Amino acid sequence: MEIVIVGAGVVGLATAWRAAARGAAVTLVDPAPGSAATAVAAGMLNPVSELTYGEEPLLRLGLASRERYGAFVAELEELTGLDTAYRADGIVQVAFDSGDLGYLDDLRRFQESLGVPAAPLTGRECRELEPMLAPGVRGGLLAPEDGSIDPRRLAPALLAAAEKRGTRLVRRRAEGVLVERDAAVGVRLDDGTELRADRVLLAAGPWSGDLDGLPPGAVPAVRPVKGQVIRLRTRVPFLRRCVRGLVQGSSIYLVPRADGEIVLGATQEELGFDTQVTAGGLWELLRDARELLPGITELDFVEVSAGLRPGSPDNAPVMGPSPLPGLVLGTGHFRNGILLTPVSADILTDVLLDGTVPDVGLPFTPARFEEQR
Amino acid sequence: MEIVIVGAGVVGLATAWRAAARGAAVTLVDPAPGSAATAVAAGMLNPVSELTYGEEPLLRLGLASRERYGAFVAELEELTGLDTAYRADGIVQVAFDSGDLGYLDDLRRFQESLGVPAAPLTGRECRELEPMLAPGVRGGLLAPEDGSIDPRRLAPALLAAAEKRGTRLVRRRAEGVLVERDAAVGVRLDDGTELRADRVLLAAGPWSGDLDGLPPGAVPAVRPVKGQVIRLRTRVPFLRRCVRGLVQGSSIYLVPRADGEIVLGATQEELGFDTQVTAGGLWELLRDARELLPGITELDFVEVSAGLRPGSPDNAPVMGPSPLPGLVLGTGHFRNGILLTPVSADILTDVLLDGTVPDVGLPFTPARFEEQR
Repeated sequence: MEIVIVGAGVVGLATAWRAAARGAAVTLVDPAPGSAATAVAAGMLNPVSELTYGEEPLLRLGLASRERYGAFVAELEELTGLDTAYRADGIVQVAFDSGDLGYLDDLRRFQESLGVPAAPLTGRECRELEPMLAPGVRGGLLAPEDGSIDPRRLAPALLAAAEKRGTRLVRRRAEGVLVERDAAVGVRLDDGTELRADRVLLAAGPWSGDLDGLPPGAVPAVRPVKGQVIRLRTRVPFLRRCVRGLVQGSSIYLVPRADGEIVLGATQEELGFDTQVTAGGLWELLRDARELLPGITELDFVEVSAGLRPGSPDNAPVMGPSPLPGLVLGTGHFRNGILLTPVSADILTDVLLDGTVPDVGLPFTPARFEEQR
Repeated sequence: MEIVIVGAGVVGLATAWRAAARGAAVTLVDPAPGSAATAVAAGMLNPVSELTYGEEPLLRLGLASRERYGAFVAELEELTGLDTAYRADGIVQVAFDSGDLGYLDDLRRFQESLGVPAAPLTGRECRELEPMLAPGVRGGLLAPEDGSIDPRRLAPALLAAAEKRGTRLVRRRAEGVLVERDAAVGVRLDDGTELRADRVLLAAGPWSGDLDGLPPGAVPAVRPVKGQVIRLRTRVPFLRRCVRGLVQGSSIYLVPRADGEIVLGATQEELGFDTQVTAGGLWELLRDARELLPGITELDFVEVSAGLRPGSPDNAPVMGPSPLPGLVLGTGHFRNGILLTPVSADILTDVLLDGTVPDVGLPFTPARFEEQR
């Protein structure tokens, strides 16, 4: 079976690898693989956060993906010889004031009601785990099985794996979907070349609806949600593991890597296709991080960048067959693209090769929006 | 007369131009002209600020240089055809709280005692001049003859002018001073080349003492004082002129340019030869700027950089003959290098060509430290 995948972010790359490993002839189309949101994302693997509070199906999907991560990375690193900086040594979520602590308590009860354990921590216990935390931190939660991965290492490893399994990479922009007899039969590139295929996967993040030739019902309802992210560097031990924080209702995270990099994110801005970094974005992130970790002011500033998350109407992924036969959607991963990569690749590979949606993916098919129309 | 100038920051460049224009054969030695502090500086032309409060001779020097700026720039732009973004449309100094306002009042009285007029402004008058100022700004001062220039345009213009007048640029590092019969007779470059000259000018900022062969008494007492500076960009009118602010005792400035750039500075850090930008530097500048101009959060972030100011024991320049015959010093300009460029070039040209120090330069010769020893 011939498959064209539009978009070489982590979801497109991982699906290319998985589908090619199962024998499909995969062509991946992207002018700049692993750029866009993939290159900006911090890579925290944290299915349960204040942002998914109440979204049970999404939490289940995240837990399923986290469970698959260890084996997924082991296979990837073994196949390619590349390191992805994967860690599963836990995440501490901390609360800055009593309102924030109340919110974390609700979150913990929600997790427990779903059978997902979360250990409550006093302020002192938080500081024992992470001594750089401010004395005022009120308390927190430990998610011992959460972790992180470096998306800037994950993407090249996935590309290498996909290519080892025979995927062909075309560094061009897909401009349109080829439709014949009411079915997708390939894509047209920006140089006019036509790539024909049995199945087309749109995994181009917030740009997934931008191709010519899509019938209105098949245009995925995704919008760009800008996120600004700062990369810092420490020369001395600073954080032992990922820290998420709620600071007077605003949410930040810090992801440390073994090489001294610390990724601090992220703003959430509805500004269309705008990736400009701003004084206000920097200021907000630094202000909140400093409340939790006063010593952050001593860290080296390396980079600030902005990416566009693909947000769907319910902020959950949009994965599965579209109303146009032959066209499959794999977008809408919003803030969870890196976490959801293994499970998304599994779901999308089944959809592409078998035409079936596995149970874990059923709540996330494009059909859920059709029914609402 | 043959002259070697070590250091092509603004002081070295302007002196090369002026000395060459008077007929000297000038060789300028610098691996990267116009880099270092010159490329980081904001370029505010503001002789009277809280930082020079009480330093009357330095204030006089700054006023003398500001007076010469208009003609200096006119001649430079005419000769080279290059624009330096020079403006002399005033600076507003504003106070954030009542303590800051008290400090500005003292500063105004000091200025008036020296015959330098300064118009006091109410908070409302400040906001009439600069509508983006925060409602809480308490009051300020208008310095109507102050202004700014873009150091990133000034340096290439000075280099072009110096070269037009016959200056030769050698893009290498000077490693040592050549001394024969107790006099400087040239410099040795990092490739071993020797450049012989009648006079050597050390204008290498905080690195001015780094050359081999300097007798102890001739090593200028300069130290690096790190400054971090942010460059922002606005797409809509934001500031009409330069704004200096005191925010709970900490001092910031914003220098707008016609092309939309706004330079926000500066930290002042005694950390040796360290030019790392830090999370804390960024945060401090953005925090204080936001207190004065809340709308700053909407501006695009372009760049953050750090430079090293050459600070002397009394934070005033060190200009004039050194104890080593043939060796002249031109360093120690600290926070005032851009402002002091025209007067420094005039003083140093007289010292190099005539062996005399003009009156305006007398308080700033290296001899003042000799006497203290």
